Amino acid sequence: MSLLVVGSVAYDAIETPRGKVDRTLGGAATYFALAASHFTRVNLVGVVGEDFAARDAAIFARRAIDITGLERAPGKTFFWSGRYGEDLNERTTLVTDLNVFASFDPKLPESYRNSKYVFLANIDPTLQRSVLKQTRRKPKLVALDTMNYWIERTPAELRETLKHTDILMINDSETRQLSSEHNLLRAARHIFRLGPRALVIKRGEYGAMLVHRAHVFCVPAFPLEEVHDPTGAGDSFAGGFMGYLAGVGRSSEADLRRAMVFGSVMGSFTVERFGLERLRGVTRREIQARARHFRRLTQFTL
Amino acid sequence: MSLLVVGSVAYDAIETPRGKVDRTLGGAATYFALAASHFTRVNLVGVVGEDFAARDAAIFARRAIDITGLERAPGKTFFWSGRYGEDLNERTTLVTDLNVFASFDPKLPESYRNSKYVFLANIDPTLQRSVLKQTRRKPKLVALDTMNYWIERTPAELRETLKHTDILMINDSETRQLSSEHNLLRAARHIFRLGPRALVIKRGEYGAMLVHRAHVFCVPAFPLEEVHDPTGAGDSFAGGFMGYLAGVGRSSEADLRRAMVFGSVMGSFTVERFGLERLRGVTRREIQARARHFRRLTQFTL
Repeated sequence: MSLLVVGSVAYDAIETPRGKVDRTLGGAATYFALAASHFTRVNLVGVVGEDFAARDAAIFARRAIDITGLERAPGKTFFWSGRYGEDLNERTTLVTDLNVFASFDPKLPESYRNSKYVFLANIDPTLQRSVLKQTRRKPKLVALDTMNYWIERTPAELRETLKHTDILMINDSETRQLSSEHNLLRAARHIFRLGPRALVIKRGEYGAMLVHRAHVFCVPAFPLEEVHDPTGAGDSFAGGFMGYLAGVGRSSEADLRRAMVFGSVMGSFTVERFGLERLRGVTRREIQARARHFRRLTQFTL
Repeated sequence: MSLLVVGSVAYDAIETPRGKVDRTLGGAATYFALAASHFTRVNLVGVVGEDFAARDAAIFARRAIDITGLERAPGKTFFWSGRYGEDLNERTTLVTDLNVFASFDPKLPESYRNSKYVFLANIDPTLQRSVLKQTRRKPKLVALDTMNYWIERTPAELRETLKHTDILMINDSETRQLSSEHNLLRAARHIFRLGPRALVIKRGEYGAMLVHRAHVFCVPAFPLEEVHDPTGAGDSFAGGFMGYLAGVGRSSEADLRRAMVFGSVMGSFTVERFGLERLRGVTRREIQARARHFRRLTQFTL
């Protein structure tokens, strides 16, 4: 089924102990869409500036990602620059030039309004809500990402948007901050009262945990000998997760578990190279092989 | 098969956000032995002082743990006191009175010298080595725990002892320190060159990872709504792990995976209550039920 994503499309400059890139296509919606496109059709809503290059539009086209909803505004595209140390969980932001993203006001093209699966990447909760209002009918599944900035500055707006959210995808520290609970199970129960029926906690190199009202599932991060660039890992995870669910059009417990695995699979590919390099080239066969590898990594008999 | 453990037996005073205890039986060898005793016969080597209470000796007796090798020396038993904050991975040591443990010189009783499975808890690597020298034949499996203190202060002695070690059980940061490698897979390959054929990396609330020369396996920590006291979790993990292997008398890949699960099971019981309380009372049926719970927590179909 059709999957809608709204979020940032950006140019990134990235430095890690394994190398650097000066200006490469990035942004949450970009990583999400590329990862999800391996499972289902993706409709993207975002904004870029006049400097947005035709070769970058072609990256979406080649993966059959619909960018009718990618608005071109006067000015420059969102630019982000960051540096990672040996501990790739820690990053230093060097530059954040919001540019055209500062006045982003998402508008759903007519052809997107029937989207059944919706991912609201990390943007102002009021904008996330406005996207939901523009859908024709209540989507089958809405997932949302957010961060400390919105939890602190716009708590009321975030709570309003969470009422319409099925799955919240955030990291450990955001989970603790949003719920004022250190224990993650108690934190999840707190969050269920705000609307979501499931919480996906992203834990970087430690993997991810799904806490559903009715069950809990853990998946490790894929152990890699070389992590080149962690940028976009979380958004690629979300793309694999939502892409899988939209692709099968169901979200039973077994589906959600598989979605967690395919999320981890896509995140693991992303970090193997810089930027979108690996995500663009990965094949269906490689995705399936890595999912089986996750099974070997976690399965046991009693 | 018989399992030998050498390490500390102590009195602990513990404070956590869930309560406090003033003086309770603890120490690495104690937690290890209690956890392992649910799977196999355990022979304990350690030292206590004249203050060691008969009711504490009875704790070992009730679990059929052989304490012929628990020497009673003039002076006081090792005393440790610590405090945990809301983040139970962080602890502050308030008091460390080594007392009789300062001059500990492990001696294997005649009846222990045929032990096939050996766990060398975190003590001076020279003492760990002396235990191995006292065994009559090469044990079937030797596992060893160590810490930053020995990695920094006695690197040559530790390396000598590692030559005779099959499985090294340490945490992430010790793994990185010992190998001078941040990436854990590369760190493991470095450690394999020192002797061990497998590395068990303990990651606290994130679970544990087995890196074997031939395979990798990850197990999450059991999600609990209430963690009362994390003291002894790692030693209980080691006890469940080695106890399971000694109990079945094999260490195939499937056995090592199950051992990781039973290690996690025993660690998860320990932290549910203060000190040894939960570990003393847990039943075989509860252990099996929790192992099945770990399966539900991690299994998926593709």
